[in-house]
Amino acid sequence: MKKLILVRHGESEWNKMNLFTGWTDVDLTPFGQCEAYMAGRLLKEEGYHPTMCYTSYLKRAVKTLNQILDAMDMDYLPVEKSWRLNEKSYGALQGANKAETLKKYGEEKLMQWRRSYDVQPPALEVSDKRSPLNDPRYAGIDPKELPATEALCDTIARLMPYYEGVILKAFESNDEVLVVAHGNSLRGIVKTLKKMGDNEIVGFNIPTAVPYIFEFDDQMNLQKDFYLGNQEEIQRKIDGVKNQANRK
Amino acid sequence: MKKLILVRHGESEWNKMNLFTGWTDVDLTPFGQCEAYMAGRLLKEEGYHPTMCYTSYLKRAVKTLNQILDAMDMDYLPVEKSWRLNEKSYGALQGANKAETLKKYGEEKLMQWRRSYDVQPPALEVSDKRSPLNDPRYAGIDPKELPATEALCDTIARLMPYYEGVILKAFESNDEVLVVAHGNSLRGIVKTLKKMGDNEIVGFNIPTAVPYIFEFDDQMNLQKDFYLGNQEEIQRKIDGVKNQANRK
Repeated sequence: MKKLILVRHGESEWNKMNLFTGWTDVDLTPFGQCEAYMAGRLLKEEGYHPTMCYTSYLKRAVKTLNQILDAMDMDYLPVEKSWRLNEKSYGALQGANKAETLKKYGEEKLMQWRRSYDVQPPALEVSDKRSPLNDPRYAGIDPKELPATEALCDTIARLMPYYEGVILKAFESNDEVLVVAHGNSLRGIVKTLKKMGDNEIVGFNIPTAVPYIFEFDDQMNLQKDFYLGNQEEIQRKIDGVKNQANRK
Repeated sequence: MKKLILVRHGESEWNKMNLFTGWTDVDLTPFGQCEAYMAGRLLKEEGYHPTMCYTSYLKRAVKTLNQILDAMDMDYLPVEKSWRLNEKSYGALQGANKAETLKKYGEEKLMQWRRSYDVQPPALEVSDKRSPLNDPRYAGIDPKELPATEALCDTIARLMPYYEGVILKAFESNDEVLVVAHGNSLRGIVKTLKKMGDNEIVGFNIPTAVPYIFEFDDQMNLQKDFYLGNQEEIQRKIDGVKNQANRK
């Protein structure tokens, strides 16, 4: 049996401060590090043994993966990092407080930016120091590929070549593959695997640091998917994500 | 100018307990983690910017690299792990106390195993659970390549294809390359770069968690090599390594 393990990064500093993060490279909180470690413990206890790992260019995902590998005693596993697994770009909203943005723009606009499939938040200017065009880590990437802002459909569009061309391809030589990424890049993978509609995926909330397991037969037909761990606790985490915009 | 940055991993649990470690996958101590982080801080302050990183399959090296990348704010850098960068295998000595081994076998034998170029310590049996043949992380590697014990010359022999074929080759598309590994695998690189004789390299001690910089011209001719940091402190660290076998 083939298994894909998805994990959304643990709590980040800006999750906690309720700011729009997007491509901003914020760190995990101590709680986020422990969540991540615990996810690794759980995977180890349940006998998972990935042989290939993927993560984004953002440290909250990289460090979540590091914590998982540490807990699994598998620090030696190969890891490939790609900007295509980055979080959805929130454009010029990056760094803004979610509750203040709600007050300033109103609930309709905010919900469109956060939860519509194809409405982009305001774009970053080329000269903005937050633009990926001004960040050396993206220097090797075609500037036309780098987003100034993204709707969920844009995130999924830039993720897909990597998901299909690299991650799925990895199953040709690996039985278990681990992907640690972000709420919206993981939504892209879940949407494809579960053949969800555009409206369905925008309402689908993935909890932080919970292993989300997809099992396939040898022809890579999806057999089963489930969250690993205490299901009540996981539901509380999912509800927490949903209510984020209403926090002070 | 091209730059190769070598870093020996920070203090490990077994360094502290004065045990022969070799391929045993022991963790860093809290001190070792801080040493590693500080090495990253120093590299950042001095303006280094590697674009490719290499490390071994052993967590004390992987986690030293993770700490360095964290301190440099460069968690996104690509990392490749190879068993060829592993520490010298100490064979059946792995897990033995250095001071007790000194008492049991005498100083001459011990010094041969630790500091000769071509005398191997007693080999691990194939059935020994410490043998790499029984460790899933090495499952993908030709069993004939995996050592039951190694003299320094053996460590260098299995390192060289990787050093020449991968690390040196990386300079074709990178100006700065970071390698985090072990006392003896790094000796192999230093021996080649500084054209040292067999006797010279066995007496050459590389301090833990100190960036060792090699600068090259564009044709990869070595121009200069030096340790980064406070030179007196570094000398104390080098002397510490030398006196390890005499500790209780």
